Order: sequence, then C-alpha cells, then structure tokens
Amino acid sequence: VSLTPEDRGFFADAGALPREDYVFLTYRFECVGDPDAAAAHLCREMTTAQWRRVGRDEDFRVRHGAKVTGLRVLDESRRSRMDPPWYPGEKHTLCEVAIATPHVNFGARIPNLLTAVCGEGAFHSPQINAIKWVDVSFPSGWLAEFDGPRHGVAGIRERLGIADRPIFFGVVKPNVGLPPEDFAELAYQAWLGGLDVPKDDEMLADTAYSPLARRAELLGGLRQRAEDATGERKWFLLNITDEVDRLCAHHDLAERHGLGAVMVNGLAVGLSAVRMLRRHASLPVVAHFDLMAPLSRIPHFGIAASVLTTLQRLAGFDAIILPGFGPRMQSPDAEVTANARACLDPLGKLRPALPVPGGSDWAGSLPGMLARLGTTDFGMVPGRGVFGHPDGPRAGALSLREAWQAVQAGIPLAEYAREHPALAAAIRAFGGPPAA
Amino acid sequence: VSLTPEDRGFFADAGALPREDYVFLTYRFECVGDPDAAAAHLCREMTTAQWRRVGRDEDFRVRHGAKVTGLRVLDESRRSRMDPPWYPGEKHTLCEVAIATPHVNFGARIPNLLTAVCGEGAFHSPQINAIKWVDVSFPSGWLAEFDGPRHGVAGIRERLGIADRPIFFGVVKPNVGLPPEDFAELAYQAWLGGLDVPKDDEMLADTAYSPLARRAELLGGLRQRAEDATGERKWFLLNITDEVDRLCAHHDLAERHGLGAVMVNGLAVGLSAVRMLRRHASLPVVAHFDLMAPLSRIPHFGIAASVLTTLQRLAGFDAIILPGFGPRMQSPDAEVTANARACLDPLGKLRPALPVPGGSDWAGSLPGMLARLGTTDFGMVPGRGVFGHPDGPRAGALSLREAWQAVQAGIPLAEYAREHPALAAAIRAFGGPPAA
Repeated sequence: VSLTPEDRGFFADAGALPREDYVFLTYRFECVGDPDAAAAHLCREMTTAQWRRVGRDEDFRVRHGAKVTGLRVLDESRRSRMDPPWYPGEKHTLCEVAIATPHVNFGARIPNLLTAVCGEGAFHSPQINAIKWVDVSFPSGWLAEFDGPRHGVAGIRERLGIADRPIFFGVVKPNVGLPPEDFAELAYQAWLGGLDVPKDDEMLADTAYSPLARRAELLGGLRQRAEDATGERKWFLLNITDEVDRLCAHHDLAERHGLGAVMVNGLAVGLSAVRMLRRHASLPVVAHFDLMAPLSRIPHFGIAASVLTTLQRLAGFDAIILPGFGPRMQSPDAEVTANARACLDPLGKLRPALPVPGGSDWAGSLPGMLARLGTTDFGMVPGRGVFGHPDGPRAGALSLREAWQAVQAGIPLAEYAREHPALAAAIRAFGGPPAA
Repeated sequence: VSLTPEDRGFFADAGALPREDYVFLTYRFECVGDPDAAAAHLCREMTTAQWRRVGRDEDFRVRHGAKVTGLRVLDESRRSRMDPPWYPGEKHTLCEVAIATPHVNFGARIPNLLTAVCGEGAFHSPQINAIKWVDVSFPSGWLAEFDGPRHGVAGIRERLGIADRPIFFGVVKPNVGLPPEDFAELAYQAWLGGLDVPKDDEMLADTAYSPLARRAELLGGLRQRAEDATGERKWFLLNITDEVDRLCAHHDLAERHGLGAVMVNGLAVGLSAVRMLRRHASLPVVAHFDLMAPLSRIPHFGIAASVLTTLQRLAGFDAIILPGFGPRMQSPDAEVTANARACLDPLGKLRPALPVPGGSDWAGSLPGMLARLGTTDFGMVPGRGVFGHPDGPRAGALSLREAWQAVQAGIPLAEYAREHPALAAAIRAFGGPPAA
C-alpha cells in the first residue's frame, strides 16, 4: 500500500491552516505498508471517508478533512506489538503522527469529539493495527464553549480555607459493607485527627445497606461537629455515582446536608453526564478514575491517561483522583506527573483542577509526592494509611498532618516521628523509614 | 506471593451461593506468583478491600465479598504479553477465573456495575498485569430492574412491516460535508431503490453546516414521499449523538418528523445516558460502536466486545451496529458472531436487539452474513456499497434487494446478476464474484 494522488488532499502545512478551525491531535500508531498512506487513510476515516459524490466535481477535504501535519517514524521494521498480529508476516512501522481535524464536523460536544477522534475512524483504519491517541490541543474559541471546573484549585482552597498545603482526602475503610452509622463514626474520627475530606470509596454509592440519603444525613451532622471541635473547615466527599438522571438530585442531597463536595466515577457515568452535572452543581465535583486503565494502560493502544485527564477537566471536574505513584497502581511515574500537569497546565481560560494521585499512600508518601509533583497543589487520598492505622483513623489522619509538619520544618519524617507517636506508628505499620 | 489464610474467605463453591444475589463474571488474566492468590486479591480489590475494622471481630466478606468459584490455568510460565512487562523477569501465568460478585454492593445501576466489575478493583489488582472481562451472567431479579429494548427485533420488524428478511440500512455518503438538501436527496434515491433505513454516519450529528433540525425536516418530507412511491415502510435513522441533556429533545425532533428511529453512539454518550433516553423514547434506538475497539480489541486486556454488546442491550438499544465480518474491521469473525449472539440470546425477559454488523459491506456480503449468522434476524449497513455504487444510490440500494432475491431463489449472485444490472454493476465495482 503506498500513497495515492488522492491521499495528498489529507496533508497540510500546520502553519498554513487556520488554527482556530482545528483540533490538533497526536497519535502513535503501528502500521504495515507506507506510513504516509496509512496516515492519510486515518485522516480520511476520521472525517470524510468518501469526499465527493459519484459523478460530481467537488472536494469536501478542504473544509472537512483531517490533515496530516507531521509524521515521524519511531521504529522501523519491527514485528507487531499486537498478539496475535492482525497483519502477520508484514513489516511493521511505529510512527507518531500530528493530525489537525476540523471541529466544524463535531462541534464543542464531548460525545461527538470522542466519536470523531477515537471512534470508528481512528480504530478501524486500514493498515493500522494499533493506535493510541497521545496528545491534544484545542483552539481557544472551541475551549470557550466549555465551562470547565466551577471552583478549581483556588476555589477548593478558598472554600476549605487551606492556602498552602496539599489537601488531605481519605477513603473510609472498610469501604464496603459498613452500616452508615459505623461508617460515619470512622469519618468523624478522621476529621478529628486532621483529615480535611474523608470520602466514600468509588465502589460505595447509593446502596440498600447504606443509602446515600442516610449517609448524607449522618455525615452532615458529624461534619458540623468536627468543624466545631477542630476549628477547621471539613468536607465529606459523597460518591453520587449513579444513573445519569439521578446525579443532580444526589448532588442536591449533599448540598442540603452541607457535605462540601461530591464524587463521580467520571468515565463510568460518561463525561457528557459530568458536563451536565457541572452546569447544575454548586459544590465542587471530584472525579474517580474507574475505566481509565482499560482505555489507557496499553503503551501503544487506546487513549493516553493524560488525554483522558484533560477531557475530565473539560467536562468540569474540580478535582481529579488519578492512579498514583509507585508500583501499586501500575502507572509509570511519568504518566502520573503528566496527568497532574493536564490538571494544572493552562487550558484556554478553564480553571486548573486539583490532581489527587492515589493508591496505597500513607504519611510517608507525602515527601515523595511533593518532590515528584513540584507543587503543593495536589491532594493525597490514603485509605488504609488513615483507616487501617493501628491506632485508628484519628491517629491515621494525624500522621498525615505530622508528616506535613515535618516537611514544612525540613525535618526527615523518621526523625520527626520520635516525638510524634501517630507518625511513628504509621511508619512501623506501612513502611520502612521513608526515603525523604 | 502465595495464598494466605485470609485469602480463603474469597473462595466459594458456586453451587453453594444464593444465585440471585450474585453477578457471575469470567475474566482472563495474566499474573505473577500464585494464580489463586492473585484471584483472591482480585476479589478483594473488587469488593471489600479491607473487610473489617481495626480491632473489631467482623467479616464483611460473607455478604459483600466477591468469590472465586473456579480457576483454570491456560498457559504457564510464559513471558508477559504486556510490552514493556510490568513485572520484568518473573514467570507469568495466563488464567481464566470465574468470580461471583454480590450485587448488593452496586445495585441495578450501569455506572456502579462498571465501577465494581471493571473499575479500579479489577484493573489495579496486585500481581495481575493484564486482565480482560470476557463473560457475564446476571441473575433474573437483577435483570428485571432493566427495561432493555422497548421494541427489539420483533418490534422493529412489525413497525417496518418486514417479516422475514434482513433489514437494509445504509450510511449516506459522502458522510461529512454535504449540505442537508443534497444529503436528503441521496437518502431519497436510496429509499426508491429499496433501502429500508438510510442513516447518518456516526460522525454526522447536529452541526452548523447540517443542523439536525434541518435534516430531520427535509428527510421527514422525503420519507413520506418514498413510502408513497414504493408502497414500503421507510425510516431515516437520525444520529442524535450529542451531550446527554440534548438527547431526549433530539429524539422528539425525529419523532415529530416521523423519521422512525434514532441512533446514538452509545459508549461515547455513556450507557447510562442511553438508559435514560430509553425511558423517554418511543422510537427504536440504535447503537453505533465508537469506543468499543479501544476497550475490547486487545486479546488479553480490557472488556470483551460481546460483554459490551450485552451492556448495550441492557441499556435499552433496539438495534446494535457492530464491527462486521472480514478483515476490514479488524474484528475476528468469531467475535462478530459472539456479538450477534449477545444481541439475540436469552437475557432474562429482555427483548432481543437486532445485530447490525457493518464495515465495507455491499450486496455481495449478504450470503456470507446469512451463513455466518445463521438467521435473517440482522441488519446490514453498507456505505459505499450503496452510495458509492457507480450508478448512484438508487442502483446501490437495488443491488441489495437483488442480492436478497437471489438468495431466496437459491441462485448464485453472479448468475442472478446476468439479468439484474444493479447487482452486476455492484459486483464489478465492489468485488469479484462473491463466494456464495
């Protein structure tokens, strides 16, 4: 398969295109045959597959066709990374391609963007047996159609009254099975110990054994007591993940009980539903990352986690819980920092979202997170590290605050722990002496 | 890593479990260490990660824990199928595991099911570096909470007045760029030639250059004319894919103009939004398969296409467009037939959905589809095979009907084409003599 004269219509000089009319995409793909021809076919499949009527002299490619603006071969003549190979015996080439696609085809709509950019066109294109959408850049006019986070990092900080440190979330554990009363008591203990935002596990939403309304009521009362007792502002992060048509009512329940924020498993509910909720919601909305891994984990296939993070911010999440650092979550550290950047880096006029990398963290994870992220604009979200602490969730929460005090004072955690038993017990339970 | 006494609580004899309380799942996974321990951890991560409070004598596993009910090693001591390997240098074992998970944890809700079954728990479980959800079986009481297809195969047949043959859909091409007037004229020609349901491409929805309202209006008028001219019932399948909060209004537009059916790119919009639309919609709702490939194509990772098909039927789709047979769509034939079975096989009291395998089909594809599917309960959905026909869409549509006549008469297509010029031209344009 090689480049035909017809394919030439799917190439352009990026500088010559009207930038406001295009979404700029980067894909990595593995193909057989001529990579330029594969890239041209990809553009064709993504847009105007048949670009003129039979017997007519017309060309829809100029206005409606995606265009290759750059192609780089990363690795030539390797065997397929797909097992079994779809094109057995052929030479396979790994490429990175820059494509500009005109948004006149899909508008400022999330489902139509997904269809155009990672739908049938991209994933069923001839010659290409593996493809990953790895980067995206949107024009400012298109971005302006999106509200993005209502509160963002600054809004969360202002509402919580936390100016300059990471936000301490924590997943109440046991995550599944506890009656609401026992569950709320654990959250209360964690608030007293210094947790800002105890939260529902992503698997605990509105269930018969723990109805959302009952949790919201109990936690609303205890939250107020915890604020009174500590003099700090406190939230409970209620997991309102449910069928689309219940999201707004669940949000209102959380608001009525003064819980402070709601969580939605964004990809499981659908990002368009999140955008709908965002228009309705007064509370900050927090994402959990279910379904990110099946779409993003394969290195040469699917959709990059950082792109999914950008889409979540676009949909309006104020904070985004992400697979965190270390081997536990099977996410390379570079991917975690890329996701954090996708939350915080400029994106038109959309507010930054708070990145919350999570996965088996505890007090000892804090110095490493600070070093890797290079900012205090993040949240951490231990589960066992707070609620599995040998002295209970109050001590577990306290261990986080003590870790932060140590960091602020420039004292190694192991040293600070000598005078701080909660941190000392955390170190004994969850780690050796931390690296920092 | 090997099995601990604690892990034993995540095993059960399937026969001893109350079947109505559990969703039964099959996964294939690749793990390091003891596969039984990996399966136990998977169950734990999917449900009650920490199954008792610190210092309490309690056990949430009995009621809330997922349980391994069977494990089969498929391939021992092979190197990882993941590139790069997450656990380099270790022995990798490929397994198939049967797991029963209690739906008390998530209820009859699609987003919560997805979270519990293919969320963080399944895709971030220790020891397991690749996992695919390959099969599912729901208890009847849980299924009864879902409406499923409102019309299904029988309802579509009744409304179209087509008792015993495949339904002929067709994607109007050029798919992107045509003004609504020209677009509608192509659909009209195809109706006259014998197409039942011309349709929007999945990439064409509500756009500035072709507003949905304008297409609906034009096609509504022409549809009536086509019915009058042919004496057959005709639909136009309007692609109402859009942000969630516009779906119902778009459906009503299609209904107002008598178009007959609407299409939604199900995974791009989110299956929960489809369930919402299903409750509102009077018209049959048809799925398009965008985002299925990134979730399902990797053999040992993600979610099987047939599972995604079952979920689409659960959400309420009356017909499901699927990647079709042959090399073009990079879907193995066995996967296409499995998807068709997921549409048609018993699923509680839910109606069957019409499978519509698609991808570069034309008149000559019909005998092969009939043979592979073993039923006439399917739709075919050519694009170029109708709208790229050298004599235009009317002849393109006619070529499908002629192919069906040939099949009914038991005459090979090439022979039948001698007296049928539309079929003859299709054979010259799109294929050699078909295999049948």
